[in-house]
Amino acid sequence: MIVYCRSLRHSFLLASFLACGRLFFASERGLQEITSSESSNAMQDLLGILPKAGHREIQGSNMTLAMMPMPLQVSFTNDDPFLLDKDFYMELPEDDEFNERLLRAAKRFLSRLSGRTGLFFENNSPTYGKNETPSFFHWSKKLPALKIRCRRKGDEMELEEDESYSIEIASTLVVLEADTDLGILHGLETLLQLLSVDPFRQSYSWPAVSIRDKPRFRWRGLLIDASRHFMPVDVIQRNIDAMATVKLNVLHWHLTDDQGFRIESKAYPKLHERGSDGNYYKQTEIKDIVAYAAERGIRVVPEFDLPGHATAWLVGYPELGSAPGPYELSPYWGISEHVMDPTKDTLYSFLEKFLHEMTTLFPDPFVHMGGDEVKINEWNESATIQNFMVDHNLSNAHELQAYFNNRIASILKREGKIMIGWDEILHPNIPKSIIIQSWRGHDSMIQAAQQGYRSILSNGYYIDLCLSAETHYQNDPLPSAVNLTREEQELVLGGEATMWSEFVSPETIDSRIWPRTAAIAERLWSPQNVSDVKDMYRRLDIIGTQLEEHGLTHIKNYDMMLRRLVQGSDISALKTLVDVLEPVPGYERGQQLGYTSFSPLTRVVDAAPPDAPVARRFRYLVDDFLQLSSTGRADTNRTTYIEIVECLSLWKENHGKLSTSIERFPVLQEIKQLSVDLAEVAVIGLKAVERLRSMNKRIHFSNAERRALNRARKAHGQSFLAVVFDIRLLTLEKIP
Amino acid sequence: MIVYCRSLRHSFLLASFLACGRLFFASERGLQEITSSESSNAMQDLLGILPKAGHREIQGSNMTLAMMPMPLQVSFTNDDPFLLDKDFYMELPEDDEFNERLLRAAKRFLSRLSGRTGLFFENNSPTYGKNETPSFFHWSKKLPALKIRCRRKGDEMELEEDESYSIEIASTLVVLEADTDLGILHGLETLLQLLSVDPFRQSYSWPAVSIRDKPRFRWRGLLIDASRHFMPVDVIQRNIDAMATVKLNVLHWHLTDDQGFRIESKAYPKLHERGSDGNYYKQTEIKDIVAYAAERGIRVVPEFDLPGHATAWLVGYPELGSAPGPYELSPYWGISEHVMDPTKDTLYSFLEKFLHEMTTLFPDPFVHMGGDEVKINEWNESATIQNFMVDHNLSNAHELQAYFNNRIASILKREGKIMIGWDEILHPNIPKSIIIQSWRGHDSMIQAAQQGYRSILSNGYYIDLCLSAETHYQNDPLPSAVNLTREEQELVLGGEATMWSEFVSPETIDSRIWPRTAAIAERLWSPQNVSDVKDMYRRLDIIGTQLEEHGLTHIKNYDMMLRRLVQGSDISALKTLVDVLEPVPGYERGQQLGYTSFSPLTRVVDAAPPDAPVARRFRYLVDDFLQLSSTGRADTNRTTYIEIVECLSLWKENHGKLSTSIERFPVLQEIKQLSVDLAEVAVIGLKAVERLRSMNKRIHFSNAERRALNRARKAHGQSFLAVVFDIRLLTLEKIP
Repeated sequence: MIVYCRSLRHSFLLASFLACGRLFFASERGLQEITSSESSNAMQDLLGILPKAGHREIQGSNMTLAMMPMPLQVSFTNDDPFLLDKDFYMELPEDDEFNERLLRAAKRFLSRLSGRTGLFFENNSPTYGKNETPSFFHWSKKLPALKIRCRRKGDEMELEEDESYSIEIASTLVVLEADTDLGILHGLETLLQLLSVDPFRQSYSWPAVSIRDKPRFRWRGLLIDASRHFMPVDVIQRNIDAMATVKLNVLHWHLTDDQGFRIESKAYPKLHERGSDGNYYKQTEIKDIVAYAAERGIRVVPEFDLPGHATAWLVGYPELGSAPGPYELSPYWGISEHVMDPTKDTLYSFLEKFLHEMTTLFPDPFVHMGGDEVKINEWNESATIQNFMVDHNLSNAHELQAYFNNRIASILKREGKIMIGWDEILHPNIPKSIIIQSWRGHDSMIQAAQQGYRSILSNGYYIDLCLSAETHYQNDPLPSAVNLTREEQELVLGGEATMWSEFVSPETIDSRIWPRTAAIAERLWSPQNVSDVKDMYRRLDIIGTQLEEHGLTHIKNYDMMLRRLVQGSDISALKTLVDVLEPVPGYERGQQLGYTSFSPLTRVVDAAPPDAPVARRFRYLVDDFLQLSSTGRADTNRTTYIEIVECLSLWKENHGKLSTSIERFPVLQEIKQLSVDLAEVAVIGLKAVERLRSMNKRIHFSNAERRALNRARKAHGQSFLAVVFDIRLLTLEKIP
Repeated sequence: MIVYCRSLRHSFLLASFLACGRLFFASERGLQEITSSESSNAMQDLLGILPKAGHREIQGSNMTLAMMPMPLQVSFTNDDPFLLDKDFYMELPEDDEFNERLLRAAKRFLSRLSGRTGLFFENNSPTYGKNETPSFFHWSKKLPALKIRCRRKGDEMELEEDESYSIEIASTLVVLEADTDLGILHGLETLLQLLSVDPFRQSYSWPAVSIRDKPRFRWRGLLIDASRHFMPVDVIQRNIDAMATVKLNVLHWHLTDDQGFRIESKAYPKLHERGSDGNYYKQTEIKDIVAYAAERGIRVVPEFDLPGHATAWLVGYPELGSAPGPYELSPYWGISEHVMDPTKDTLYSFLEKFLHEMTTLFPDPFVHMGGDEVKINEWNESATIQNFMVDHNLSNAHELQAYFNNRIASILKREGKIMIGWDEILHPNIPKSIIIQSWRGHDSMIQAAQQGYRSILSNGYYIDLCLSAETHYQNDPLPSAVNLTREEQELVLGGEATMWSEFVSPETIDSRIWPRTAAIAERLWSPQNVSDVKDMYRRLDIIGTQLEEHGLTHIKNYDMMLRRLVQGSDISALKTLVDVLEPVPGYERGQQLGYTSFSPLTRVVDAAPPDAPVARRFRYLVDDFLQLSSTGRADTNRTTYIEIVECLSLWKENHGKLSTSIERFPVLQEIKQLSVDLAEVAVIGLKAVERLRSMNKRIHFSNAERRALNRARKAHGQSFLAVVFDIRLLTLEKIP
């Protein structure tokens, strides 16, 4: 990404490579790096302009702007900022007068803008004007306006659709232009992220910038698993809003699995009636959600996972299964043995009718048929199936699944749909039109592309595993060194974050999706070289708060869950501990405690944020302090030192404050050891900090202290202390 | 309400009058009051039992139990408490095996119980057993069980239906008995409120109590106005859940008004299409909500407000109006001039068809037809209407409205429905079957009863006016001195809290309804003498937190709204100020700032809690301190003194911390004066406290200080400082 100044008061070109956290400018003296110690007048001016662009918080500027995903290109002008006031109005192109989607998007935009600024706009509805680029030159005298210029309604279901847009901001005019209204939708989100405060004029404002933007990948998705835990309509809707905010464009809706069939079928009502606990989406709700998503430029791709993960189908229709049945909904996680019998012709007529019904609900050209984790025991045990395989020359289960997939793909083709499947379906016999979604590894994506299949990457984007945003952010679908030709690279459509729902309820799901998914959204939208992790986190914190506007609960349910744990009593000490706890990452949680679909998701581990922000900020402090220390400056930088000591002192004292609550509320018993551990390692951390600062080589750590550090790594109640590693770093002790 | 001990270790009878905040016991020495200075062994035992009942928090007991509404009768046994563990199971009566409502309620109960305790119950679904009262005597060896005994499915639409229940808790058995499942629903909520922690056994528990309960009034309602600001389905649903928690049983749904027609009509589609901004309830959604409410024992009474408040009807069907039209939806508050033309026969055929359609959606026997605030200008100006009145001997507008109401009442009667209307409809000519809802004053309710009409009280329960819970709590529909015979009193069915929505959005509505409505719910359910305000507030705080379980945002959106105001930066100083702000009460807000339906509801006033809990706690501190002071003990009670000084010192320093944010964010400009005022009055308060403590008569207040106190009473940004009055009290200055 390149940020440059179109014009500057001091007539030099600014080339700023913010992605790597450094700032350069080109002057007569050549390309020079700007450091914070610079103090020339020119530099002051430069810094005076830059923060308005919101790329970095500059000390004292009080600016907290951020864009996420970062646009392709941002440039600054030396115009005054655009000041928002109650006279502000919004103009849509009269050619597009019948584009209701654009009009409604404009109204939502106005309402959010008014909500964030408290401004009572005189014009609450957009006006219409000529669809031509207005002249900035002749504009200065008029009321502050946002003019939208757009040529046509975009087709969000067309993979190659133009999503680009541009923004020009001058002192009293903003022009947002795009070929399609999809571009406009993206541009409006960018404008909301650009909203700033002009500190000199006591006004909300937009900085004078020029933006060109378009996505790197055309498939930017979020999978929500509504089968394992049902997610009500409002949960889906607010997540669609959030997706639009970070420019994601595909909701992949996992609707069936062993634990529940979550969509009403009028053709086969026993699917939802017997295949669920009563929680399923009615067809009217499905239509509403599809329309809600389309309003925001988002496609909805349903997933009907087959032939494995199929128990919920079989409860009502056991005749489709490979075993005699009867079947029951599974309250357990993991992979069920129950699979469809692909040798039965009745299965295909059943699915033909079912899928035909589903196509009336889901207009998207793609249908996901799952295909992952197919257990073959029932196939092996069935004589009919074994005979069928012999008769049809199918030498193993994988070939039988390919046979199944081929038949499904042709059913879908007759319906005008394209099939997607998880990477297990990759097989020489399946048609090239099928799209492969890679979950088991990057390799399967590469392999699919090399074999001529289009693909979507999900491996590395499994947000249910509670890994850091950084991990996902660094997972580029097409890293520079990727072993694919340009043509093969074109087959990689993009990626999808996957929110599997074994361990989330409607109460916690937002906190497992957001804000980390915004980092994945940036990976899929922004140029490859937008990759500075620290800056990503800076912006993620800001965007995370803005996302609350949609009713998301990822921040606000945290305190609420802590309040419930202590029955409404004071949460401060509990919060100090849980602030530095994270759920055990990966698949570890599922292997503990005998979880079922009935288990409570209200304990400390469920409140604990993945990629805990407090722990992350401590990590950066430790990095800085160790850096200072290694260059002999640990005793000179007071700020970092004071902040670290404050953190550690707070933790050192916390167990004393929390122990009463732990004794009082049985549900907190499981975190008692974590609370004790935190206090212990904080004491060790304080000692380590003093040693580094004083460079006193006579201070050593005892074996007891080393054991304490080691003990504190252990998880309790499926949570672990996310600051122990960093405290160990401070001790400079070898980490086993 | 009487609380007594069935048996006690020390064989005396305990009669505790907790409603008045005092505790007595009867012993050989007669009735004695228990004070906190008592320390006999017997007393220790007594106190050891009492807190388990959750009526009061006894120092050091760590108990925070509370019930709201308070049951009719609670008694304590000396049994051990019932300890909850993973073996806990729930048994429903096999006679009621086909009562799906009861089964689903039981499952929700188990899920909430598991959610609050973190327990992984082995039995996630209830079992079935013989429908007979189990013997406590033979139970002791079995697994901990909750047995439900219930004779039949109740009819929530039958006004006289039995809602009573009883609970008996012994060490390993809880029996919840009721005639109808409606009683069981109430009892389950009581059990959740009774859930306690046994501090000696490190276990969640129920105290050994015996409860008999039934409502004082049979109509306990909440009105939600979904017209002025539309409220999405999930908002309605979570409020229904909360209503059930505090045993309210009527959702009065205000669906039409000048600002929007919020229900789909297939008979007259222009009603919702042209009469709304696109936000309306689809008929499928209406059916879902009615079913959702019925599941929780709650009736849904729709309101179609006529003949005034009618603009939204007339946009699509101007021919029904008294003026020629055309009509437009009103974005303004206040009373519109537009009224129906009651002289047109076509109006009645229209309404007949419309109401017939509505009866297919709303099974409740009651339909609310509004009838309030009918402006008569258009009637006066229409020659046809004037002629009609002459022809029909209608001497004034009120008689014309009575003519209208009579015709509507007969249409409804043919549909098998009973009409309800606001008190303006009271007129000698209307049928006695009609129910009068009193909003303008208690008097109209009395009048209605004296004239033989059944009535519902809403005057005094207008929660949109941002008054204190105390105000509503003290508003008894039938105070002891009421001038009504016993028969007339029987006509008073109950009351309804009214949530008019001029100044609430889906984001803020919960905080205007809860927790204050729980106090109204108690007024309508509990015995009249349950009236101790301080104890009500103690319990309200606890119940308020428990209500969050339903996804209500009344607590958690507070911080979220503050975060938005400061764009995600630190909210602590802002919170310190807003904690003691309240929205201007009454109708004042509507007269300021030119509010329309588009105006932002995201400013400080919208975040500020009505009846601010922090201000209320300060008020009680001041009460205590002044009490101590007046008896010359102000210098001896350190706790109260320290707490007051802590509050005042925090406020004194706060403006210094907050001013940067105020300068930075334009939306905070309007509270700048409040922030300055708080600091100023805090300084005065500190001086006053020192004077009282030291009894130093030479300390006086200057005119400047008196002016500052006066200035600080003024509202800014539609908010006022709720602690100024109490600080004035501390100064002992005369209050003008």
